Amino acid sequence: MEIRRIIELLRHGTPGESIKVQGWVRTKRELKEFAFLDVNDGSSLQGLQVVVNQNLPEYEQTLKLLNTGSSVSIEGELVASQGKNQRVELVAKAVQVWGTADLETYPLQKKRHSFEFLRTIAHLRSRTNTLGSVFRIRNACSQAIHQFFQDRDFMWIHTPIITASDCEGAGEQLAVTSLNLQDVPLSEDQTVDYSQDFFGKPTYLTVSGQLEGEIMASAFCNVYTFGPTFRAENSNTSRHLAEFWMVEPEVAFCDLQGDMDLAEAFLKHVFKSVLEQCPEDFEFFNLRIDKSVLETADTIINSEFERITYTEAVNQLEKASRKFEFPVEWGLDLQSEHERYLSEELFKKPVIVTDYPKQIKAFYMRMNDDDKTVAAMDVLVPKIGEIIGGSQREERLDLLEQRIVAQGLPLEDYWWYLDLRRYGTVPHAGFGLGFERLVQFMTGMANIRDVIPFPRTPLNAEF
Amino acid sequence: MEIRRIIELLRHGTPGESIKVQGWVRTKRELKEFAFLDVNDGSSLQGLQVVVNQNLPEYEQTLKLLNTGSSVSIEGELVASQGKNQRVELVAKAVQVWGTADLETYPLQKKRHSFEFLRTIAHLRSRTNTLGSVFRIRNACSQAIHQFFQDRDFMWIHTPIITASDCEGAGEQLAVTSLNLQDVPLSEDQTVDYSQDFFGKPTYLTVSGQLEGEIMASAFCNVYTFGPTFRAENSNTSRHLAEFWMVEPEVAFCDLQGDMDLAEAFLKHVFKSVLEQCPEDFEFFNLRIDKSVLETADTIINSEFERITYTEAVNQLEKASRKFEFPVEWGLDLQSEHERYLSEELFKKPVIVTDYPKQIKAFYMRMNDDDKTVAAMDVLVPKIGEIIGGSQREERLDLLEQRIVAQGLPLEDYWWYLDLRRYGTVPHAGFGLGFERLVQFMTGMANIRDVIPFPRTPLNAEF
Repeated sequence: MEIRRIIELLRHGTPGESIKVQGWVRTKRELKEFAFLDVNDGSSLQGLQVVVNQNLPEYEQTLKLLNTGSSVSIEGELVASQGKNQRVELVAKAVQVWGTADLETYPLQKKRHSFEFLRTIAHLRSRTNTLGSVFRIRNACSQAIHQFFQDRDFMWIHTPIITASDCEGAGEQLAVTSLNLQDVPLSEDQTVDYSQDFFGKPTYLTVSGQLEGEIMASAFCNVYTFGPTFRAENSNTSRHLAEFWMVEPEVAFCDLQGDMDLAEAFLKHVFKSVLEQCPEDFEFFNLRIDKSVLETADTIINSEFERITYTEAVNQLEKASRKFEFPVEWGLDLQSEHERYLSEELFKKPVIVTDYPKQIKAFYMRMNDDDKTVAAMDVLVPKIGEIIGGSQREERLDLLEQRIVAQGLPLEDYWWYLDLRRYGTVPHAGFGLGFERLVQFMTGMANIRDVIPFPRTPLNAEF
Repeated sequence: MEIRRIIELLRHGTPGESIKVQGWVRTKRELKEFAFLDVNDGSSLQGLQVVVNQNLPEYEQTLKLLNTGSSVSIEGELVASQGKNQRVELVAKAVQVWGTADLETYPLQKKRHSFEFLRTIAHLRSRTNTLGSVFRIRNACSQAIHQFFQDRDFMWIHTPIITASDCEGAGEQLAVTSLNLQDVPLSEDQTVDYSQDFFGKPTYLTVSGQLEGEIMASAFCNVYTFGPTFRAENSNTSRHLAEFWMVEPEVAFCDLQGDMDLAEAFLKHVFKSVLEQCPEDFEFFNLRIDKSVLETADTIINSEFERITYTEAVNQLEKASRKFEFPVEWGLDLQSEHERYLSEELFKKPVIVTDYPKQIKAFYMRMNDDDKTVAAMDVLVPKIGEIIGGSQREERLDLLEQRIVAQGLPLEDYWWYLDLRRYGTVPHAGFGLGFERLVQFMTGMANIRDVIPFPRTPLNAEF
């Protein structure tokens, strides 16, 4: 008998069909002569209603096993549902119970649980409505990202996770080592003897694949990374993870305008695609988690992003009638409150801020003709602030060398990065997007730990 | 003017079209009154032939800059090519040289380079024919993998890279730490004080996402990982990387038969899809690298995989007329030479060997009724041997606990893995595939370091 996924039955199942479903019992409602089961196989938020009645062989014994959490295969016939919550329901003709779940000890009984509690049972939490919807959206979002880039002839590249350089100078990295920490070998000068380490030198977990992305763009023109990155920031906040996935396109023969166009088209495509693929999950978040997520999606998809320079943004912030906690002054970085003001209050839509002061941006960003600002751009969205950060890269060898030196970084560490400017250099640009921030933004989930299956944060590496 | 990718022009360009291309000059051939350029933008193995003649403004000066490696944007008109190597060529009307490449120092002059040398300039090697083709195939292969699973309603899941457990007991792991190696803090008992480490306990780079995959399959039924994994094996071979990408599907309500069917369909789909997308690159490998890669692809796609038990395989090996280096005896693991004999010589096609002795397989594989073998399966292919390893997982709580204890592993470390068997356990199965091994097999490349952009191996973490 044909095994069917529940989402497909709810959407297209026809009364009269004989089918088989497999999944887990979420609830059981016993009436006098029969019982209703809500069976979920993870394919959709809503489960399939299954009617188990006394025609079933060994009805009484089977019913006892069918508690919340038990796993089943059920064969039967689809009938039109009399309830108004679903089109069809399944009348069971044969039930196989694979595994039971003890009523007393199974942690996911019907009652609600806090997200904090659910994090302690991350091996079971995907069986709840909210986390199930989060991870379906996460998958749809991943696929929308691949589709966007592949349709535009971008190549997915795998940049290294283990790196010997802290090339971005982005701060605290986690070290990777095969040395025995209990007894680290020292050289004669009493420093760590890295010649005995696996890679023969200090190595770390990458904070960005951008510089390697630039290598690949210098051969294939359009590339993107989509992989794990790491930060050892000791920030116990609802927006930080030590391990997260990042998307980083890099495009040869592209300037800042092209970069902004790409970022805007990218966000529109991803929201549109996920909304089309997971309408029920989106509705759920709008109803239960954050009543603005559908409106936000609509704004992303249908509004033209505002584009202003950093200097204009600072002028606007200085004119704002409200007070900010952090100071506003040309030369200082924008804080989250400033970014949100611009996007949420002033323009009421996404805003791309460009041309930031050089001193607050990374060395690789392209110097503008004013010699004060660089060709950077940040995409700001309501509620979140910055969701994408990008720039045109400095492709001129002499200017890049000056910037590296000016920031006190050792030129020799960048020999291959500089080679890209020595041999066939091209104008190029790219951006970075934190994937979990995007899923958080899309779903309205308050804590970033609830949009990744197994979050890694300070003092937490469970599962 | 419309910017076009070269692969698309070579396939569909029409004489008379005015277009613009962007890329890098691979070669320049100067004749008396004009010159031919071979321009490549990374979209295809073959470049576009560009004719530069004296009608071009500043012909002489421009021509001097157009050396191998220089980067250009060229506008012009497509004309039918008189050479037989391409349908169309471009007559340049305007040339912009973005970056030059010094004739003396640019490492990629026309002559051939060894793959060993190219590894030392991994930031430039993607601009060569072979590496360009490798990475186009790598991308096509990645997309074929996503497509295969997404079309079958599998969810892409991101399992953690940093893990506190060595759950597979698979051997040497690389440690992740924020401790100062120069001065590791010790507790009173002189052991490492991990309470001061970032995660508060010893953590490592994952060797497999399988166990977390089982968690997710226990909620969503069909899932797959596709992400980086790590091994600290000190193996300087042409088949080992310390950092590599792995694909690991996990399927609930699936037994070993279903697992084999999935693995076979998977390999067939991936080969078929890549062959369709990258025919030129495949031809190139067949011509220049390994004259059997097209035949191998054909065998994968069109033959029904042989399926035999380990016991039958041992019988066949004992009967073989040839001698093996390693002993053949029931209870010993199959070596690469045995696997290759079965696939290359005996059956001349892929072979799936099932039901291995329990003592040579991992604790999580499902015990067969004979109590001697487990429901494991390895897919063996010509030239490579094992390319996929999988199993049905032990879903019975008591048997799983026995196996964990029998292997001397601490039960308490597996509390959440055992919970999956306590609450709604289901028969389930999955497999693992080393992505680089697949690309190596597909292309015939001799060294695995040449199918990943930036290989990590003992004493090597450059770029």
